[in-house]
Amino acid sequence: MKTLATQVITPEDLLKHWQGHRALTRRAIELFPEKDFFEFSIGGMRPFAKLADELLAIGAPALKGIVNREIKPYNPEEGKLIFKAQYLEKWDEATAEINENWQKLTIEDFNETFNLFGQYEFPIIHNILYFIDNEVHHRGQGYVYLRALGIEPPFFWER
Amino acid sequence: MKTLATQVITPEDLLKHWQGHRALTRRAIELFPEKDFFEFSIGGMRPFAKLADELLAIGAPALKGIVNREIKPYNPEEGKLIFKAQYLEKWDEATAEINENWQKLTIEDFNETFNLFGQYEFPIIHNILYFIDNEVHHRGQGYVYLRALGIEPPFFWER
Repeated sequence: MKTLATQVITPEDLLKHWQGHRALTRRAIELFPEKDFFEFSIGGMRPFAKLADELLAIGAPALKGIVNREIKPYNPEEGKLIFKAQYLEKWDEATAEINENWQKLTIEDFNETFNLFGQYEFPIIHNILYFIDNEVHHRGQGYVYLRALGIEPPFFWER
Repeated sequence: MKTLATQVITPEDLLKHWQGHRALTRRAIELFPEKDFFEFSIGGMRPFAKLADELLAIGAPALKGIVNREIKPYNPEEGKLIFKAQYLEKWDEATAEINENWQKLTIEDFNETFNLFGQYEFPIIHNILYFIDNEVHHRGQGYVYLRALGIEPPFFWER
């Protein structure tokens, strides 16, 4: 019988945390007017659609790479999706794929090193924390875009 | 003898992760021109000094509250600090205080519930993840302010 020792955070809880953030980002995408999602920007930064391209190119494909220990280059599909609805659809597919692949991770895996995208050689836990932080960072950017457009972003605490 | 079971993330590593983010936020504060730090804003959002007030009112005082299981209300000292240099000084004091109080946390503590600021009753690990996420979120906002001011923010990966 395998017993799980007390954890600072359990894998189940970390997945829930990540997916909570992903649900919030999805809500931010939903709030953008169609045109602004693809075009609005401040200070020469990327519009939110391009940031979403990045997030979609990281989360699910990166976790798949980790689980299969298969190193693939970072490859955002920029310009392929042309409607917000397509982003939301792809987002939901990624949600399911992440949930599925997450089940294949063992506690030991989190401490193993993986060369993410053939560029970032770190313990897997730090790759995963990076996915979350990077999403929170870019969503924070998106919140400013929404406010500048006169749109109230979702409450940060809401997941 | 006490042996530590395999962890998804160890307390030491989580502290390093948090302090890495705090170091990056400090760098963002440093990059703001003095006047813009207190005044520049987009879409009616708070200037970065006010966001820094919030971050200072959370990190070190919140961890102190957790360690001592002492519930105090959220109390940002708005308007007290009037120079950027004072923020940086207080930031460094908070860094040391966080490091000190962190040593008092046991693995079991992370799973215990604490009523943060008498408002947020969650397991301590989720209080701590919230401190980090909230900082990343607001710093992402600060990055847009910097870009809008024509200033290149620090590389996100740099900690």
